[in-house]
Amino acid sequence: MDIKRFFEPESIAVIGASRDPNKVGSAVLKNLIITFRGKIFPINPFVDELQGLKAYKSVVNVKEKIDIAVIAVPAELVLSILRECEKAKISLAVILSAGFNEIGGEGTKREEEIKKFLSKAKIRIIGPNCLGIINTDPNFNATFLDPNSKVIKGNAGFISQSGALLSAVVDDASTNNIGFSKIISIGNATDISEADIIEGLKTDEKTKVLAIYLEGLNNGEKFLKASMSFSQEKPLLVLKGGKFKSTSTAVSSHTGSMAGDYKAYELAFNRVGAISVDNIDDLFNFMRDAPNIKITSDEVIIATNAGGAGVVTTDHIISSGLKLSKFNDKLLNELAKSLPKEANIHNPVDMVGDATPERYRDTLEILVQQNKPIIILFSPQEMSQPLETAKQIYETHERHPSVPFLSVFLGGARVDKARRFLLERNMPIYEYPNEAVFMIKGLFAYYSHRLQTFKRIGKEKSRYRDFKLKNDIFGMDAKKIFDSIGIKSVEGVKFNSRKDLENGIDKIGYPCVLKIESNNLAHKNKVGAVILGIKDRKALEDSFMKLSKIIKEQKINKAAFGLYEDVNKFGEDKMEILLGAHRDPQFGPMMAIGLGGIFANEINETKFLLSPISDQDIDELKSSKLGTIIKEFANENVFDELVNYLLKLDRLMAANKGIKDIDLNPIILLKDKLFATDFKIFV
Amino acid sequence: MDIKRFFEPESIAVIGASRDPNKVGSAVLKNLIITFRGKIFPINPFVDELQGLKAYKSVVNVKEKIDIAVIAVPAELVLSILRECEKAKISLAVILSAGFNEIGGEGTKREEEIKKFLSKAKIRIIGPNCLGIINTDPNFNATFLDPNSKVIKGNAGFISQSGALLSAVVDDASTNNIGFSKIISIGNATDISEADIIEGLKTDEKTKVLAIYLEGLNNGEKFLKASMSFSQEKPLLVLKGGKFKSTSTAVSSHTGSMAGDYKAYELAFNRVGAISVDNIDDLFNFMRDAPNIKITSDEVIIATNAGGAGVVTTDHIISSGLKLSKFNDKLLNELAKSLPKEANIHNPVDMVGDATPERYRDTLEILVQQNKPIIILFSPQEMSQPLETAKQIYETHERHPSVPFLSVFLGGARVDKARRFLLERNMPIYEYPNEAVFMIKGLFAYYSHRLQTFKRIGKEKSRYRDFKLKNDIFGMDAKKIFDSIGIKSVEGVKFNSRKDLENGIDKIGYPCVLKIESNNLAHKNKVGAVILGIKDRKALEDSFMKLSKIIKEQKINKAAFGLYEDVNKFGEDKMEILLGAHRDPQFGPMMAIGLGGIFANEINETKFLLSPISDQDIDELKSSKLGTIIKEFANENVFDELVNYLLKLDRLMAANKGIKDIDLNPIILLKDKLFATDFKIFV
Repeated sequence: MDIKRFFEPESIAVIGASRDPNKVGSAVLKNLIITFRGKIFPINPFVDELQGLKAYKSVVNVKEKIDIAVIAVPAELVLSILRECEKAKISLAVILSAGFNEIGGEGTKREEEIKKFLSKAKIRIIGPNCLGIINTDPNFNATFLDPNSKVIKGNAGFISQSGALLSAVVDDASTNNIGFSKIISIGNATDISEADIIEGLKTDEKTKVLAIYLEGLNNGEKFLKASMSFSQEKPLLVLKGGKFKSTSTAVSSHTGSMAGDYKAYELAFNRVGAISVDNIDDLFNFMRDAPNIKITSDEVIIATNAGGAGVVTTDHIISSGLKLSKFNDKLLNELAKSLPKEANIHNPVDMVGDATPERYRDTLEILVQQNKPIIILFSPQEMSQPLETAKQIYETHERHPSVPFLSVFLGGARVDKARRFLLERNMPIYEYPNEAVFMIKGLFAYYSHRLQTFKRIGKEKSRYRDFKLKNDIFGMDAKKIFDSIGIKSVEGVKFNSRKDLENGIDKIGYPCVLKIESNNLAHKNKVGAVILGIKDRKALEDSFMKLSKIIKEQKINKAAFGLYEDVNKFGEDKMEILLGAHRDPQFGPMMAIGLGGIFANEINETKFLLSPISDQDIDELKSSKLGTIIKEFANENVFDELVNYLLKLDRLMAANKGIKDIDLNPIILLKDKLFATDFKIFV
Repeated sequence: MDIKRFFEPESIAVIGASRDPNKVGSAVLKNLIITFRGKIFPINPFVDELQGLKAYKSVVNVKEKIDIAVIAVPAELVLSILRECEKAKISLAVILSAGFNEIGGEGTKREEEIKKFLSKAKIRIIGPNCLGIINTDPNFNATFLDPNSKVIKGNAGFISQSGALLSAVVDDASTNNIGFSKIISIGNATDISEADIIEGLKTDEKTKVLAIYLEGLNNGEKFLKASMSFSQEKPLLVLKGGKFKSTSTAVSSHTGSMAGDYKAYELAFNRVGAISVDNIDDLFNFMRDAPNIKITSDEVIIATNAGGAGVVTTDHIISSGLKLSKFNDKLLNELAKSLPKEANIHNPVDMVGDATPERYRDTLEILVQQNKPIIILFSPQEMSQPLETAKQIYETHERHPSVPFLSVFLGGARVDKARRFLLERNMPIYEYPNEAVFMIKGLFAYYSHRLQTFKRIGKEKSRYRDFKLKNDIFGMDAKKIFDSIGIKSVEGVKFNSRKDLENGIDKIGYPCVLKIESNNLAHKNKVGAVILGIKDRKALEDSFMKLSKIIKEQKINKAAFGLYEDVNKFGEDKMEILLGAHRDPQFGPMMAIGLGGIFANEINETKFLLSPISDQDIDELKSSKLGTIIKEFANENVFDELVNYLLKLDRLMAANKGIKDIDLNPIILLKDKLFATDFKIFV
């Protein structure tokens, strides 16, 4: 469906419009009367007139076409109202009423009934449990925001999963002169989802940047698709709330616990090229400025009239992973000619405290040759002329519109007019240097991402089979599955009794490892005792006795023994790596690779790769610290084989939807080969 | 000296007072006339009157007592002016003039001359190359800040090494209603240093918090002492500029290059308990609120009228390493009774969108029982009453003044009056939740630190000898030094010719390691070829031939051979650790411990410990990731021995001022013992 129909209505009915000014229905009616030029039909069975408009008993009594029904009746009445809307041939509704999924129990039932109704009816809805929607061109405000709140017309679309946060953002935005194209309070997203709106606003010319406040998603795949396509056109901003929700279910796998709740979102935002921010003020800066600057270089120029400010800005640049642009001799000569001798002509360029507006202009005219983003710092000093300097900055930029100028005017009242001057001309202007640096970092990442096209790799035709696992499996049982897909591991045998020990050792040889194998342990992650480095017959027999005793004492059900090669027999230099996989409820499988063994718990160098794994993911892994360490330790082919294993795990997870987590920890690397030594699959 | 004399003058002379309103001397005179109630003597040999005051040809012509001379003459005249001041028995001077150390060459010479003069004269100076000083009670402004800049009287002292940054901060602060007690532009700190001022303001009752903008220091030890003592009394804030200055000298040691330029400052700030901030706006928040809130718990309570805002705040809390306070049943029951049923009574407490001021009050009255910091979130919604809510928050806090209340009023114009209401009553109030969280984190660290007393450990009486090293030394030559101080290493011998190989191998045995040893390599960090894992006579002879060839081909001067035990002979499970030391020009030796071998370059888990190493440093090391890994791998006594080695390196550095860096990489850990295997000392 075309989401735009929600934003260009010619007539709106407000169902549940009320006389009581404290009611939602009254506020939304008031907002519409103030803002909407089309026809408004208040619906209320008990009155004839509301806020000066004729009121109707029901939408079916309105004999004219109604484009959107805004529903603000108690939750229990919503379904019957929707039925009336269907009768009246209304095809779009915005349901403000709360009392659905968000309260659980009865509410969830109600929402299910509505879903069922919608699956047959020709009505599409936004909500329920939302604040409503706003368009600024053509203008209408179908929300129950305080009618005193101003919404400025502008470039930013905003989707919010929190109504209360939305109302704060709208209020704050108008104070900060930030304009919106469209605002959507998405509510429970029973029908129209974030993805639908992202897709719809992609072709909306009024929306030049889209910001989303997100706590969760109903459909990760749809979100990925819509937002990947959106961000190829325009910047997409995300503020994710609930990064550290404590999950209700305890996580048994190592990989799963490392992934946490937010990892999949982080990977998803990264994959689609969304700009992820943590703070509301950063969101504002991007909403305002992202449409106005294009950053295609991570080398930054600083021009300042205050050394200290240049120093602080340099620190922010370096700690953000950006660089200072280096000047060639020609540029340095020009700067030396133009600037007084106390000036610093190297980056950060210090134009000295008495820098006049003209000196700013002349310096910038030289610096634009570099064609890199320029952070222009201004600190109000004794002789400074803030407004005149702002004008010179603006005019210089007019002559070189393709060079990004980000101005930072430090100070308070003295620079207020100058800030306002630049703000009104859509020039990026900040109070503190870190804001400008964060903007460059975010937009550089965004534009770099746009240049890449996502390419999944490892698209082997043959699918793995679905092993239809019903229970967690460990040890030899799990090893067999990894064997079958070509993940190489140490030799092993599983057996139940003393007499099979003989056959086992003939096959495995010394040194070996003896383990208790059981898929039915009370604590899933405790997979029984392990004895390493068994060197001879005597030690093997002792070990067998020891483990038998443990099985008996701990009453381990269906226990067996696993006998494995000891990797020490392959040589002395080894490195332990963890491979794993975790299925995220929204975004599907993520594969993990990190340092294994005792490092796995403490050293946070584990990389996660969202399925399907892309070329770019592998490139990033290669150049990561982890990749560097692995390649320094082992041959190139060992690294390639690890990558291959990651792809295999991806395919295994794809074919086995029942598998939640996989831990292969550790995989033992030698210089020229590698072996999995421990095997866990969680369902 | 008592720094306070600078702040309570009864008479001030302005030397270099000028008729030209664009001159520094004119601005400072104007500022004094506006602010100072004592006597002002403009000094100018060419005029009789300035800005309505009688002017004098020289300070010697003033027949009254002059407490402070403010000097604003050209640099080359400063020394002769100081001589006149001496004649006139002036004992304090503030030198605004620039053109000294900061411009190098001639300027440095001038500053040396002034230093020489000061060493004999009874004059103490602030500056040169500074903006001046300000006191707000009693009031005087002896700076050349724009006379239109307002300086509000308040609690914060501010020392700045950048004049231009200071002028921006003053302007911004007045707009943000932040008050100062004293402001000092420290300039080149030729005489009076940051440490002197910190020490002086420690007992200044008007100064309740002190902020410093710092780029470098002349005397780290003095700074440490003064600031450690200061922060036991009052919060000390530091904004360090120039964290990533590129050092001019290439760093040859691994430890030195990991330390970088900022590490010693970071350790120093940590040791003294200073609150280190990266941004100017964070500095402001601390300057304003640090005197008003005491945080002694890292468990935080959130009370909100907007779920989304609570979610975002929780994220900030968790990612800052703080915790959400947990409620007991009694508290939950009280909350359940008091709040509507849609509310969330667990932390973060959601009082729901229609929360009235009275609901805020009642909820807070219950929550204060926990005696933990409370972040109170307010999002302006349809029925919200911001100002009335602020009043209830204020009044509740009046009843429970010991519980920290940090309010966050989201939004813009609608909450403006409410914010102002709280601001005027010295209640911490922020625009965004991250600011409140950062404040709690910083003040919790500060107050935790105050509870600890610094205790150095390892105070052995016996000092190590000074080896008086003239050149970098490696291999056996360095090993001998470590042997002598009890750092255990693999056995080794150094020899020059084939025939000594025999004796060597008799002592060392197989497997062994053969290295080229030379202290005179062109590239210091390349200490020649190393052949590991030599298992028999044949391999040893081959290795000898190979290295001999390298010595010849590469023309390595004064090369010898080193034959060492191969640690593989001790067993299979090994872990590699780096120990090192680096001498910081300001703060002296720092010891380093981290993952060694191939991990050292990539995994940033190296801990630095500033000399002298304290109990607390070791406790922190123990509970760090690195400590956990080491203790998981090896026995407790191996960890203790590593700590012991760190103390030994500390003493070695203390006795050998000539040593710049030490690298022991790797130290090989086994389960129950450890050996150094590679030895480098840089001078």
